[in-house]
Amino acid sequence: MVEIFEKNPKALPFGDDVSAVEISKDLLMILKSDMLVGKTHVPPGMTLRQAARKAVVINVSDFAAKGVKPLAVSASIGFPAHFSDRDVRQLAEGLNDGAREYGAYVIGGDTNEAEDLVIACSIAGICKKGEIITRSGCKPGDVVAVTDHFGTTGAGFKLLFEGVSVPRSLRNKILEPVYVPKARLREGLALARSGAVTASIDSSDGLAWSLYELQRASKVGFLIDTLPLSPEAMEFAKVSGADPFELVFYGGEEYELVVSVNKEKWALARDSVEKIGGRLVRIGVAVEEPELVFKRGAEEMRLEPRGFEHFR
Amino acid sequence: MVEIFEKNPKALPFGDDVSAVEISKDLLMILKSDMLVGKTHVPPGMTLRQAARKAVVINVSDFAAKGVKPLAVSASIGFPAHFSDRDVRQLAEGLNDGAREYGAYVIGGDTNEAEDLVIACSIAGICKKGEIITRSGCKPGDVVAVTDHFGTTGAGFKLLFEGVSVPRSLRNKILEPVYVPKARLREGLALARSGAVTASIDSSDGLAWSLYELQRASKVGFLIDTLPLSPEAMEFAKVSGADPFELVFYGGEEYELVVSVNKEKWALARDSVEKIGGRLVRIGVAVEEPELVFKRGAEEMRLEPRGFEHFR
Repeated sequence: MVEIFEKNPKALPFGDDVSAVEISKDLLMILKSDMLVGKTHVPPGMTLRQAARKAVVINVSDFAAKGVKPLAVSASIGFPAHFSDRDVRQLAEGLNDGAREYGAYVIGGDTNEAEDLVIACSIAGICKKGEIITRSGCKPGDVVAVTDHFGTTGAGFKLLFEGVSVPRSLRNKILEPVYVPKARLREGLALARSGAVTASIDSSDGLAWSLYELQRASKVGFLIDTLPLSPEAMEFAKVSGADPFELVFYGGEEYELVVSVNKEKWALARDSVEKIGGRLVRIGVAVEEPELVFKRGAEEMRLEPRGFEHFR
Repeated sequence: MVEIFEKNPKALPFGDDVSAVEISKDLLMILKSDMLVGKTHVPPGMTLRQAARKAVVINVSDFAAKGVKPLAVSASIGFPAHFSDRDVRQLAEGLNDGAREYGAYVIGGDTNEAEDLVIACSIAGICKKGEIITRSGCKPGDVVAVTDHFGTTGAGFKLLFEGVSVPRSLRNKILEPVYVPKARLREGLALARSGAVTASIDSSDGLAWSLYELQRASKVGFLIDTLPLSPEAMEFAKVSGADPFELVFYGGEEYELVVSVNKEKWALARDSVEKIGGRLVRIGVAVEEPELVFKRGAEEMRLEPRGFEHFR
């Protein structure tokens, strides 16, 4: 439906993690809206406070991917008539949690009666024109990297929706990022400052999908040679028999950054993230041929542009 | 729930028509979010395109009241699984209509599956610090004025929800602003430029409610001596026996501006609006005593701080 909107000549093209529009010769205003719907985005066991916090964090994650600081949060909340005052307060606490955790503030919003819980957050910020990292700057030869390992959230969904059972301590470790996802804002800001990153996206729709979007926007291909499997997902795979490859690439609702880095500046990029206590994991390389392939030893397979489908 | 949010020292206090935060020594970033819920905000007979347009216009109206240009629209839409592609296109068309009509552009957003139609729009803009007109600057002696007459929308709701019947030509005239509400953006911008307005609010929750909010924020009272009854509402009252006073003050979903004007600058303010083809109607005066009273001849009554309840 994007083709229906008349294009603002001073705005970034549609289809990046955030929207941006020129407000002066040097400055961009950044805007991002994403809606959390109770039925499809709030897994069983998640509190209202956690849900509202998550509604903020999913938008912060997009700012992180672009290397831009989120400044102001505005939230429209719809909730069923049976919600108590205490429920509504929990939602407000969660919005405040999500904003303050990343240095932003909730500055406005409204509440409405609705059929189901709906939390629509918008975040606004400002950055200098050259500073934003788009999805389209990757060149063949660039290193492809992620800010941490994957698979834990995918394992979490298997626990919650497929009745898979694992020891309690592993279960708790796995469900933590499902209920309290973190945005990689400090990593994104450090990477932007490093000047080494050529393109970036967050991984909310799954790693394979994010890689696909990034290579498509940059008109390159990716040869992925490393499976960035988290220790929790590895343990889960052992206990449950789940496929690690599936967990890593098609898990979804993970908020790592997926970036391409100029190979001459790889050390600079990695050091910039390690300096703030994060990590940058090399998983492959950008190539000319516009394909998305995973290749490790004799294993070789095409990664499907198949995204994470929100649970129903 | 507003007290839960940690205050940003660089933001305007909560409780105005829009949120605003300093982004430099001279500039404010303005942000406004409002959600339109199918069940409570979309009256029978309204098309999806009109509904989406309205979701933008209700936010533009808040910019109008502050004298600030809306720049960028971001929208999160939730809709039931049975919506067709054509339905979704209609929604996109409506968002584009609402934005372009007021010089803004849709620059981003997302779609989600939800139980009911929910359109959450956020609008962002920029203004110089001194330019925004808040709700709190009215002083005793100021003239109280509105940008047009009231009552038509209230009459419309009686047509739609109470089965009142009137001649077709009157019905059409009355329903027009229900389905295609207009924001008084040109008026608001002209008034802001005039420098004559001391406080301003839009009237989406009904005239009485808006007057109440404005006098409360400014710590003054209002003595209203004129009933700004629209010709359509007058005709409707005659035909149906409805109370014109009720239609004007408690109708709701009208998007006129309610402003206070420095009395020395009244002619300046009125001329500024007339010059762009609008009008400014004096309805009363601000007084010391913090009361909200309607007085015309021997008639005198207190206006109740009772807002428009969205139709269920």
